[in-house]
Amino acid sequence: MPTVETPQLNGIFITFEGLDGSGKTTQLRLLESELKKRGHKVVSTSEPGGTLLGKRVRELILDEDLQVSPLSELLLFAADRAQHVETLLRPALKKGQIVISDRYADATVAYQGAGRGVDLRLVKQLIKLATNGLKPNLTLFFDLPVADALKRTASRVTLGQKNNRLDNEDGEFFALVREAYLQIAAAERKRFRVIDAAASPTEIHNRVLEIVGEFLQ
Amino acid sequence: MPTVETPQLNGIFITFEGLDGSGKTTQLRLLESELKKRGHKVVSTSEPGGTLLGKRVRELILDEDLQVSPLSELLLFAADRAQHVETLLRPALKKGQIVISDRYADATVAYQGAGRGVDLRLVKQLIKLATNGLKPNLTLFFDLPVADALKRTASRVTLGQKNNRLDNEDGEFFALVREAYLQIAAAERKRFRVIDAAASPTEIHNRVLEIVGEFLQ
Repeated sequence: MPTVETPQLNGIFITFEGLDGSGKTTQLRLLESELKKRGHKVVSTSEPGGTLLGKRVRELILDEDLQVSPLSELLLFAADRAQHVETLLRPALKKGQIVISDRYADATVAYQGAGRGVDLRLVKQLIKLATNGLKPNLTLFFDLPVADALKRTASRVTLGQKNNRLDNEDGEFFALVREAYLQIAAAERKRFRVIDAAASPTEIHNRVLEIVGEFLQ
Repeated sequence: MPTVETPQLNGIFITFEGLDGSGKTTQLRLLESELKKRGHKVVSTSEPGGTLLGKRVRELILDEDLQVSPLSELLLFAADRAQHVETLLRPALKKGQIVISDRYADATVAYQGAGRGVDLRLVKQLIKLATNGLKPNLTLFFDLPVADALKRTASRVTLGQKNNRLDNEDGEFFALVREAYLQIAAAERKRFRVIDAAASPTEIHNRVLEIVGEFLQ
């Protein structure tokens, strides 16, 4: 339950955000591997899906055959997040590890708040409840024009990967999502860094290392 | 989303509450059948599980192999309820039907609030959010001493029905749950009626018909 807590979190919490197709998951793997090579203890995880419960909640949220109202979706994400924060993120951070999460609370502000139009006060209230105030130390946003992101995810479908409920949203939805991310970037310049995801994977990786390297010093 | 709404709900919303083993589900079927015989339009449903999403959420909540924190459980129930209220309960009530639900919001106050000790203000806040203020017109609580309820559910297990995560709670947990229900009964005498579930099924059915009959007049 939300309690007043003096956090003894010695670790570093980094989150990756971006539209599907922005390459963030590939970049997360590359960063994880590089940090491990340099001797850091690294845990990589994702939302939704970082815990066993989370994986099951993720299946529900992405299931094309299920009708899920925007409010219900918001509450499912919150349930996943509460479990993730309590059983995975906080324990790893307490042990002093570097935790990298593929999406976290900013995604809820962008997708449910801006994309689906759920009242932003409510979105923030549920984030506060589920995270008990745990914020990332650093967030990397992999920014891509919506048309490019859609082209990349469309080619995934062609390659035989299954489409899901969120993939069925249109360009307007993703434009709202991207705009929300850029608004967060403008409001929280220290925590939230924008990376040009149209560059080559190697260029992007180097830029990620540069930002994270500076941050770790 | 929660909006200011002038509810045009012509139907009647009845909920059944009680510990597992209290016979409420049997009584719900009997009442449903009797009301239909009398020419009423009746919809029977349950929480969790009244919608397709709800059924899947129910599987998660009851899965013995999953670790679910109290806060996460509360949020999953809220997600189920939001979907249930929006897609099933309100539409049926708008059409003027009698809706009977096997458990609803009082169960969350009793099980998550009293049983698991989740902050009651938080429990009520999430109920308000998920229901958008939809309250039952009449609630029947099938009351049974905890020892008797446990004996009845234990015999179900002997009969080969699968045990679930909630079944693994002990007598103390269910005593807190029962106490919470009785407190609601004391506070809301008009809506919330206590029925002695130790009587015979026929006696209980007659008592249910008497209360519901009075209410429908």
